[in-house]
Amino acid sequence: MAKLRYGMVGGGPGAFIGEAHRKAISLDATAELVAGCFSRNHEKCLAQGEILGIAPQRCYPDYREMARAEAAREDGISFVVVVTPNNTHYEICKAFLEAGIHVACDKPLVTTVSEAEELERLAKDKGLLFMVTYTYTGHVTMKFMRDLIRGGEIGTVRTVMAEYPQGWLYKENDWGGKQGEWRCDPAQSGRVNCLGDLGTHVENAVATVTGLKIKRVLAKMDVVVPGRKLDDNDQILVEYEGGATGINWTSQFAIGCDNSLRLRIYGSKGSLLWFQETPEEVTLIREDGIPNIIKRGYGAVTPGAAKYGRLPSGHTEGWLEAMGNLYDSFAACVQAKNQGSFMEDMIDYPTIEEGVNGLKYVEACLKSNEKGNIWVSL
Amino acid sequence: MAKLRYGMVGGGPGAFIGEAHRKAISLDATAELVAGCFSRNHEKCLAQGEILGIAPQRCYPDYREMARAEAAREDGISFVVVVTPNNTHYEICKAFLEAGIHVACDKPLVTTVSEAEELERLAKDKGLLFMVTYTYTGHVTMKFMRDLIRGGEIGTVRTVMAEYPQGWLYKENDWGGKQGEWRCDPAQSGRVNCLGDLGTHVENAVATVTGLKIKRVLAKMDVVVPGRKLDDNDQILVEYEGGATGINWTSQFAIGCDNSLRLRIYGSKGSLLWFQETPEEVTLIREDGIPNIIKRGYGAVTPGAAKYGRLPSGHTEGWLEAMGNLYDSFAACVQAKNQGSFMEDMIDYPTIEEGVNGLKYVEACLKSNEKGNIWVSL
Amino acid sequence: MAKLRYGMVGGGPGAFIGEAHRKAISLDATAELVAGCFSRNHEKCLAQGEILGIAPQRCYPDYREMARAEAAREDGISFVVVVTPNNTHYEICKAFLEAGIHVACDKPLVTTVSEAEELERLAKDKGLLFMVTYTYTGHVTMKFMRDLIRGGEIGTVRTVMAEYPQGWLYKENDWGGKQGEWRCDPAQSGRVNCLGDLGTHVENAVATVTGLKIKRVLAKMDVVVPGRKLDDNDQILVEYEGGATGINWTSQFAIGCDNSLRLRIYGSKGSLLWFQETPEEVTLIREDGIPNIIKRGYGAVTPGAAKYGRLPSGHTEGWLEAMGNLYDSFAACVQAKNQGSFMEDMIDYPTIEEGVNGLKYVEACLKSNEKGNIWVSL
Amino acid sequence: MAKLRYGMVGGGPGAFIGEAHRKAISLDATAELVAGCFSRNHEKCLAQGEILGIAPQRCYPDYREMARAEAAREDGISFVVVVTPNNTHYEICKAFLEAGIHVACDKPLVTTVSEAEELERLAKDKGLLFMVTYTYTGHVTMKFMRDLIRGGEIGTVRTVMAEYPQGWLYKENDWGGKQGEWRCDPAQSGRVNCLGDLGTHVENAVATVTGLKIKRVLAKMDVVVPGRKLDDNDQILVEYEGGATGINWTSQFAIGCDNSLRLRIYGSKGSLLWFQETPEEVTLIREDGIPNIIKRGYGAVTPGAAKYGRLPSGHTEGWLEAMGNLYDSFAACVQAKNQGSFMEDMIDYPTIEEGVNGLKYVEACLKSNEKGNIWVSL
Repeated sequence: MAKLRYGMVGGGPGAFIGEAHRKAISLDATAELVAGCFSRNHEKCLAQGEILGIAPQRCYPDYREMARAEAAREDGISFVVVVTPNNTHYEICKAFLEAGIHVACDKPLVTTVSEAEELERLAKDKGLLFMVTYTYTGHVTMKFMRDLIRGGEIGTVRTVMAEYPQGWLYKENDWGGKQGEWRCDPAQSGRVNCLGDLGTHVENAVATVTGLKIKRVLAKMDVVVPGRKLDDNDQILVEYEGGATGINWTSQFAIGCDNSLRLRIYGSKGSLLWFQETPEEVTLIREDGIPNIIKRGYGAVTPGAAKYGRLPSGHTEGWLEAMGNLYDSFAACVQAKNQGSFMEDMIDYPTIEEGVNGLKYVEACLKSNEKGNIWVSL
Repeated sequence: MAKLRYGMVGGGPGAFIGEAHRKAISLDATAELVAGCFSRNHEKCLAQGEILGIAPQRCYPDYREMARAEAAREDGISFVVVVTPNNTHYEICKAFLEAGIHVACDKPLVTTVSEAEELERLAKDKGLLFMVTYTYTGHVTMKFMRDLIRGGEIGTVRTVMAEYPQGWLYKENDWGGKQGEWRCDPAQSGRVNCLGDLGTHVENAVATVTGLKIKRVLAKMDVVVPGRKLDDNDQILVEYEGGATGINWTSQFAIGCDNSLRLRIYGSKGSLLWFQETPEEVTLIREDGIPNIIKRGYGAVTPGAAKYGRLPSGHTEGWLEAMGNLYDSFAACVQAKNQGSFMEDMIDYPTIEEGVNGLKYVEACLKSNEKGNIWVSL
Repeated sequence: MAKLRYGMVGGGPGAFIGEAHRKAISLDATAELVAGCFSRNHEKCLAQGEILGIAPQRCYPDYREMARAEAAREDGISFVVVVTPNNTHYEICKAFLEAGIHVACDKPLVTTVSEAEELERLAKDKGLLFMVTYTYTGHVTMKFMRDLIRGGEIGTVRTVMAEYPQGWLYKENDWGGKQGEWRCDPAQSGRVNCLGDLGTHVENAVATVTGLKIKRVLAKMDVVVPGRKLDDNDQILVEYEGGATGINWTSQFAIGCDNSLRLRIYGSKGSLLWFQETPEEVTLIREDGIPNIIKRGYGAVTPGAAKYGRLPSGHTEGWLEAMGNLYDSFAACVQAKNQGSFMEDMIDYPTIEEGVNGLKYVEACLKSNEKGNIWVSL
Repeated sequence: MAKLRYGMVGGGPGAFIGEAHRKAISLDATAELVAGCFSRNHEKCLAQGEILGIAPQRCYPDYREMARAEAAREDGISFVVVVTPNNTHYEICKAFLEAGIHVACDKPLVTTVSEAEELERLAKDKGLLFMVTYTYTGHVTMKFMRDLIRGGEIGTVRTVMAEYPQGWLYKENDWGGKQGEWRCDPAQSGRVNCLGDLGTHVENAVATVTGLKIKRVLAKMDVVVPGRKLDDNDQILVEYEGGATGINWTSQFAIGCDNSLRLRIYGSKGSLLWFQETPEEVTLIREDGIPNIIKRGYGAVTPGAAKYGRLPSGHTEGWLEAMGNLYDSFAACVQAKNQGSFMEDMIDYPTIEEGVNGLKYVEACLKSNEKGNIWVSL
């Protein structure tokens, strides 16, 4: 089976997230990077291309040209990875979809629901695959929890306590460097900061694991650290369809928290606990109240989750492996598309539908907050 | 110094909480039980009195008679401990206050704000001490956190994530035995179950440790487990005076949680983490993001907290010691009152003012919930 | 049922361990202190007696007189608690045994095997009960582990990793105050320091929980901190009868360790993990490798262990409760002796036989170390 | 800078460790695989080569031929990775060293000290680099601890408690599949099983982090699980030069342990704790006894360790990254060799000297055990 070829938009020198995507894809060598528009500055693009071993003629000065040219090549890319700033995703994704190229795009997908829905429609019309890289859902343990809940292990979900606090922006007049500056700047980030960056991960993680759909939200979005202009602490009441409830909390000033995405899911027959910073384990508690700590690699892990593990239990896997898992499923689907054997149920990665849901969530929260913390339906 | 004498109302055979109070008081032998109205059934009262070594003539059939008789004795009790069901506290406490006897009453204090305020007024008018036994605040580690925050160690408090989930009432048609039945029964508990039992502990713990006063609440009080008639899951947004925010969560169906009172306090210069089920330690995180786990008995603990420890670090103290600490301070104050040396700043236990605040909190939450989860000021 | 009466030798003003024993006994009010020889200085003895509410005529200047006088009284003590320095235990215990009074003695019992055996013989001849207060074995969780192993839950024990490091004597020329000075002084402690104080706890904890008997030891006893004269770090290989092996480690300079008694027991079908500083839980791992964290108060705890709990799960119990549990069983046995209903299998506390075993262990280790770390049989 | 080219001996289809090395090298794309002798079966070798994208003419049927041919090519490999079974390492490494090619070899290096020393001499004579892939020492946190100890942060090391228990071979007549069978078979593994596989990791981890050299050992190597012929539980007393002591424990039947390499290092001014299964953090305890939990990515991490991190703190890195770190340093040294800029102090990976030390440790332990657990000098 020939290796897939892919291209990248963004991911120039020093761009953390682009390099992370490349490393994740290279983990299982499922696809080879052959083209890129790594920077709007063509010099920088060429320099990065040289480092990455990309032929100069496939280091494009413009993403539109890249989409066209790669679509036209016999050995053109099968998919593109979009890792540019947030507010450029829409145009870039659209260009590649129109050129008939599958897309993997970093989250958050775009800035409005309508843009997201347009991309969703376009992908559907063209029969193209579209992944939104909510990395955390790639963890074996996340897939395991999803399987446990589907299998009825904890009964009906009653309430979900979900949170993703960080602490790096706790300080007045400290903008967290390049990463923080654009997030905190309304001109670049739009109306939302913390909720867009972290809140969408929370929403997506809960949805992926529990299968619950949000019915309505009541959001308190606060601007706390002196000098900030956008939300840096979001405390949100959630009602899910079917009656479950929950709280989603995100913060950027919670000193001592790094990427502290945590899920605590309470059902009628048991509970599940998960923490992103120790992603190799799940705590399952059944009706006897006894925590069972189940690790990736154990016999108890469901096959649909276990298959993503690369190393025996005790050899820790981390964030890159989680992202690699998303790409493994995505690449397998792209291959199947190429070979005409694709089936919908092969998809085991976050799709554009989840990207759309993330934006709906953000918009409903913004509306709730603006109106004084009232319930807003999604 | 003569040992104090005290009496008890409630605490008959098999009553867990009465026995717990007696054990806590006996820990440091600060006061001796000499009188009681242990049961409305006089036979039972006498039987319990015999077990406890109380003279039969001081085993009273009626608490009013007890108040009168003990007030009249030269060797009468200095204080009474009230550990009867909730809805009887008001009349009992009133009787003893009117008889000029100091009162220690189990929480929640009474069932309405107006009753609470009346008791508060009465105690004040009579110059009597009134403790409400919010046990958890007696932990050395809680007092240590209070001192750290007062000392500015974590700067200005920005947000407080507080919770007290339990799991014992997760099951349909299982009422948790005698303890659960009355709590879940509107006829005995009034309009509130989980929030009264657990939510008041959360409110009080945050207030004690941070010194923050609640400005307003937005409460979602849900009746979740099939068959329940009162709230068993409460998710509450809080705004404090001065601008801090928080979430208070309590639940009775969170499988795997026992008495999982947890505080996470995020300030402008650091954070504090505390968990009731490992009460011997506090996690303090300063601006470098590094958790410091400080244990009771360590040199780093402030003197005002450290003095309550009985055992060297590593010899675990628990819930009884926490309650004992409350009584140590209360007994010292009663002694000082008896000797005319009492000063207000000697008080290091939860007073009736905190009992009043707990009821205000409950009433505001009930109102918020009834009106569809709107903000209600306290 | 009349309350038992007991006396105490030692436990004068400021003596931590005497006060701890009194608190532990008072927890369940199983016995009342009515006599004592609290200090060799009679003034101090009387002063302490007054604080404790003991009649002056029962505050004895001499333990021998106390033994005689109490034995002669109709309302004399049923048992004595010996909490004096180690090297005085033998004479004191002997005096009370000879007077026909049951004995509870702090550990380590005495300083030589022959003294210990003599006391054992004496108690047996007189039909008297003799408890050695290895406090940690009183924990509900310890009894639970013992029951699990007896019930075959983890199969045959293969190896036991046991340790009890402390850190308080890590510093050169710092003798840890009054507590440390006598321990580190050969004139007062004899040939052993760390192994006597901590090593006997380790030996006893393993024996109690596993039921294993030590066949032979190979001991490395080091004097590490500059200025010390006795062992402060002991690393010991153990072979048990039946073939199991183990390592016992104790230290006094392990910075960051308080009372870090830890047991890790590996059997043919499962493992058990326990840590003294979180004594409310046991980790049981069966063949699937999944840790099950079982807490005191849970339904899974065996009845013979569960019955010692005083508080519902989630209300932490600690070290005092563990000691209280020893006294509960001891007092029940003394009562049964008094009433003629005693049966051997009622004993659920560490007996003098265990005190003898502790001394045999220490002597074998000393011999092994002196001979250059060779195997020495017990 | 041109990418390095490397070859591999071993790592055929289904070989876990070969694939792991390839993934680790690919993480930072420091070298490209261009040649291999992946299997003694040439068909299999070619098949694997095709999957890996290696030209058929560089898929060699014989490692000697590969060494010769690659050494002769202008575009030949700069280094070879040897991931064959243990007992073949010697001949293979020798062949490549003789051909002038740098070597990275899996641990344990070879089966006797003399073979190891011969390879060491050969590498030295030829001026070639030789890495032994003790993966765990690649963790940022391990390098951080090394730096802390070198910097005097915990004073003089006094005792080291080191262990690496596993549980996968706990079961009678269960040989743990392909991985276990050869380890447990004297014909393939020689005289040692558990100590060679796990004990060498322990020895190397302690040496790397503390800089201590072993003076002598007293080893108890037991064959415990019925049916085993080689050691599956090793409990070893260690004396280091300079007077520090320690215990090294390894086991294959410790149910509940996966890759539970744990270091606890106690110095005169502080302690360091580390656990391989949570490799993102180090616990540093200074004289105040307060655990400081320091994570990879924090400002407190020393620059020499921090530079190996790829992801911000909170994005977990794991075992592959640790191995990748070894290769990053090795590849940088190989590049420097190629460019004539190599300096000894550039080496930040385990060298053949450490491989030799591992074998000396194993041989001394075997001798100690055979002679009845006596001290044997290294």
